[in-house]
Amino acid sequence: MSFQGEQHPGVEAPTAESQGFRLNHTMLRVKDPEKALAFYSRVFGMSVVRRLDFEEMQFSLYFLARLEQGDDVPEDAGQRTVWTFSQKGLLELTHNWGTENQTDFAYHDGNAEPQGFGHICFSVPDLDAAEAWFDANDVEFVKRADQGKMKDVVFVKDADGYWIEVVQADRLAAMGD
Amino acid sequence: MSFQGEQHPGVEAPTAESQGFRLNHTMLRVKDPEKALAFYSRVFGMSVVRRLDFEEMQFSLYFLARLEQGDDVPEDAGQRTVWTFSQKGLLELTHNWGTENQTDFAYHDGNAEPQGFGHICFSVPDLDAAEAWFDANDVEFVKRADQGKMKDVVFVKDADGYWIEVVQADRLAAMGD
Repeated sequence: MSFQGEQHPGVEAPTAESQGFRLNHTMLRVKDPEKALAFYSRVFGMSVVRRLDFEEMQFSLYFLARLEQGDDVPEDAGQRTVWTFSQKGLLELTHNWGTENQTDFAYHDGNAEPQGFGHICFSVPDLDAAEAWFDANDVEFVKRADQGKMKDVVFVKDADGYWIEVVQADRLAAMGD
Repeated sequence: MSFQGEQHPGVEAPTAESQGFRLNHTMLRVKDPEKALAFYSRVFGMSVVRRLDFEEMQFSLYFLARLEQGDDVPEDAGQRTVWTFSQKGLLELTHNWGTENQTDFAYHDGNAEPQGFGHICFSVPDLDAAEAWFDANDVEFVKRADQGKMKDVVFVKDADGYWIEVVQADRLAAMGD
């Protein structure tokens, strides 16, 4: 590993204390897990590697991964929990029981005010094919690849209205130039 | 790969159209990149693999990775952009220029109302050592491992107040039982 990271104000070199730290997951609250799971499994091909239920606190957690060749996920539930918390780049969906039955209930997407969280992003092998696939599934677009100032960057909405950026890496080589 | 994902209402099996999709990054807006970069590089050992500046739109993007042995990051900037958008589990920090000079400016963490985004999570090899390391760096805790109903789960705040969960995978085998 020759490249050690860009230098910018504030940046320090990693030390031994943070060795082995991995960015495991991002958590989003969802109103209706059936709709959220249908969206992420069908459109983005994600699998539920572990659901954890917390009856006393009345919520469930769904850990989703886009499984790849070579991923060796344990069948045993306890081992699978450990596997889940050892991975990189999972999506955790939190369902507070009952929200799916509240007509006016909706979560905040972070892009309307007050702003904060922006989006998650999927890298795909073929952006044009992905756009066609989203259309075939009636996915709502925020912007298409040929719209706006950010060319070759797609934004769609998930079942709760959270934004998902979709990019094809080799079409972004000149980004920011 | 024998395990193919848990079955829950809504879940469909992945199809060919989503093959090769990867969860590339999560984007959070930050008020002051110098403070955010100091936090994520020093405390969590993350490196800036690519900064992209958009002068016309007055913002910069910082892509952060927790580099691991074997990560082969290209030196060339364009190639490094393509590498960045091909990875799994990166953190993107967006800086809208000038927010760092606005005294009362703050982003919304998603946990206060209106709720939505919850947190990002790091998996660490030793949770006790991580807690001591956070204390040594005056990191603000939301909860420690021995507090609350979720034992062995730590929550801290980043420089903008976003929540970061910190777990040690092999201490969570019985979670949700």
